[in-house]
Amino acid sequence: MKKLFGALLFTIMITNNSCQEPYSNEDQISTIGPLTLIIHGGAGTILRQNMTTELENEYRDKLKEALNAGYAILDAGGSSRDAVIASIIIMEDSPLFNAGKGAVFTSEGKNEMDAAVMDGNTGMAGAVAGIKVIKNPILAAIEVMENSPHVMMSGKGAETFAIEQGLETADSAYFYTQHRYDQLLRAKSRDAATGLHNSFTDTKFGTVGAVALDKSGNIFAGTSTGGTTNKKWGRIGDAPIIGAGTYAENATCGISCTGAGEYFIRSVVAHDVAAIMRYTGKSVRDAAEEVVMKKLVGKNGEGGLIALDRKGNFALTFNTPGMYRGYINEKGRAKVMIYKDEE
Amino acid sequence: MKKLFGALLFTIMITNNSCQEPYSNEDQISTIGPLTLIIHGGAGTILRQNMTTELENEYRDKLKEALNAGYAILDAGGSSRDAVIASIIIMEDSPLFNAGKGAVFTSEGKNEMDAAVMDGNTGMAGAVAGIKVIKNPILAAIEVMENSPHVMMSGKGAETFAIEQGLETADSAYFYTQHRYDQLLRAKSRDAATGLHNSFTDTKFGTVGAVALDKSGNIFAGTSTGGTTNKKWGRIGDAPIIGAGTYAENATCGISCTGAGEYFIRSVVAHDVAAIMRYTGKSVRDAAEEVVMKKLVGKNGEGGLIALDRKGNFALTFNTPGMYRGYINEKGRAKVMIYKDEE
Repeated sequence: MKKLFGALLFTIMITNNSCQEPYSNEDQISTIGPLTLIIHGGAGTILRQNMTTELENEYRDKLKEALNAGYAILDAGGSSRDAVIASIIIMEDSPLFNAGKGAVFTSEGKNEMDAAVMDGNTGMAGAVAGIKVIKNPILAAIEVMENSPHVMMSGKGAETFAIEQGLETADSAYFYTQHRYDQLLRAKSRDAATGLHNSFTDTKFGTVGAVALDKSGNIFAGTSTGGTTNKKWGRIGDAPIIGAGTYAENATCGISCTGAGEYFIRSVVAHDVAAIMRYTGKSVRDAAEEVVMKKLVGKNGEGGLIALDRKGNFALTFNTPGMYRGYINEKGRAKVMIYKDEE
Repeated sequence: MKKLFGALLFTIMITNNSCQEPYSNEDQISTIGPLTLIIHGGAGTILRQNMTTELENEYRDKLKEALNAGYAILDAGGSSRDAVIASIIIMEDSPLFNAGKGAVFTSEGKNEMDAAVMDGNTGMAGAVAGIKVIKNPILAAIEVMENSPHVMMSGKGAETFAIEQGLETADSAYFYTQHRYDQLLRAKSRDAATGLHNSFTDTKFGTVGAVALDKSGNIFAGTSTGGTTNKKWGRIGDAPIIGAGTYAENATCGISCTGAGEYFIRSVVAHDVAAIMRYTGKSVRDAAEEVVMKKLVGKNGEGGLIALDRKGNFALTFNTPGMYRGYINEKGRAKVMIYKDEE
């Protein structure tokens, strides 16, 4: 009798550990409240010793501004879609992040931007790749999702579509920032010295992203990026690829990634986090941990992600020295973090 | 005591039904032999009553030719990579399929092609989107995978890279086929009549793809397409998106999809099949069935896929009236099928 009880308990434990189907939301560790907004401004080798107090404060202030703008919409009963757009536009419009104004330069000295959005309620998605003249790429992704039969558009065709939809354009002078141009020159001289074209030498990945949960329980995710400094050949990274850098479904979670895009594409990172939750019953935190800290680390894939489920549980997970990140919800003020040791 | 036994057995049954981790390959239903090559030439509204005997024979002969060419490589101890390339090139070079010569026309009267490959052994991948001048797009995807630090390139940049790698170019006269041009004219007059731009009115999806398993037990997958007739705005479909239209990992399976690309992108179809196998222990056949016949059908997502695991089990699954498809392995001659009622 005692033996049987033991066997039964063991079986139940195994079942709970390895497989909870469907996803049960039993792990409430990170839960603070239902209205939730999480953001990132890129992961990478962001080290305290390389940062001035002034610059650090600029980053923290801008992340807070983005969180507060998005949360004001959620708090007023607005949609997670509108909250994500509001947060990302503030980061796109800031020269601090590698998205919109502040986007890195391609090998040809241009700014080519990518963005994607996904609606966790409807399963609809939109993405643009390699656009140069649209001020806010995240809005171009929204237009693709809402006003075209397509999910993904690229290059001049995507720009034509976005302009037809009435989006604001900006010229190369707007996108020019001195520190990004200096980054390009450094990358070019490094490549000339090594004889290699190595897009991974610049290990500050300044992609921005946001995921929100609104009063209707709907999750929405968005990501926007300038890609990698000195990129060539019309390279497309993970940010505009649904399933790689951006994904959302109410049943599991919404996700936005930042990092060495090629690794994130090959590992289909965003969808893998959702699939682990859906098919094994793991929490958003455990699923993010498994993908970022085990699977990606095992492949030397540097970066991080933010993920949020429909109960407000979330993960801000990265395997780099730092990730610009933050969250805000019903219980508190905007909380922003940069380095690994902040919680 | 009896009650406890019952509870214990019930728990074990639940565990076995809902979760087998890791993927165990217990389902051998489709197994015929280890060396295996499967291909498709597109899914869609392919109906017997609309086909002449002559045209049907042309399709069957070309599919057999593609299978035999790939299998000869496997049989001689060659790699799954080389087998997939050989099969796809034969379909790209034929005007019968919507890939390479035979690619459909964009709204601007051009041929813009996409392709992707993934190596199930190394996890490496390559893809190109929106290329016009490379004779065999599948080779451009191979070059991206093997000779660049990137996974995905697009447009003129991708062409520049492919030409730098020495790939053969072709001009618009080569890609011109009368029946595809007539399709464009029909699509344009339909759009003019309805006032809509509806890329889904052309429901023959002629994308081509191949997945092979070689003597080393390595899986390789590839997909090549011209996209959809009358496409605009630099639209990118699922074929070149790793995780959506193309995916491979030895631990689960290799996959190539064909269908209404937007649905396949939003559902991250190829990776979802692999994730179901990995996280629930289902067979390649059951996983493909769940994604194509349940999930996609539930969203009105038309199309199909071919999937092959490391034991030679495979699925050729589609929810449309037909899919050009076939397989060849150690036990038999090339077998090709077109309509739903063929097995």
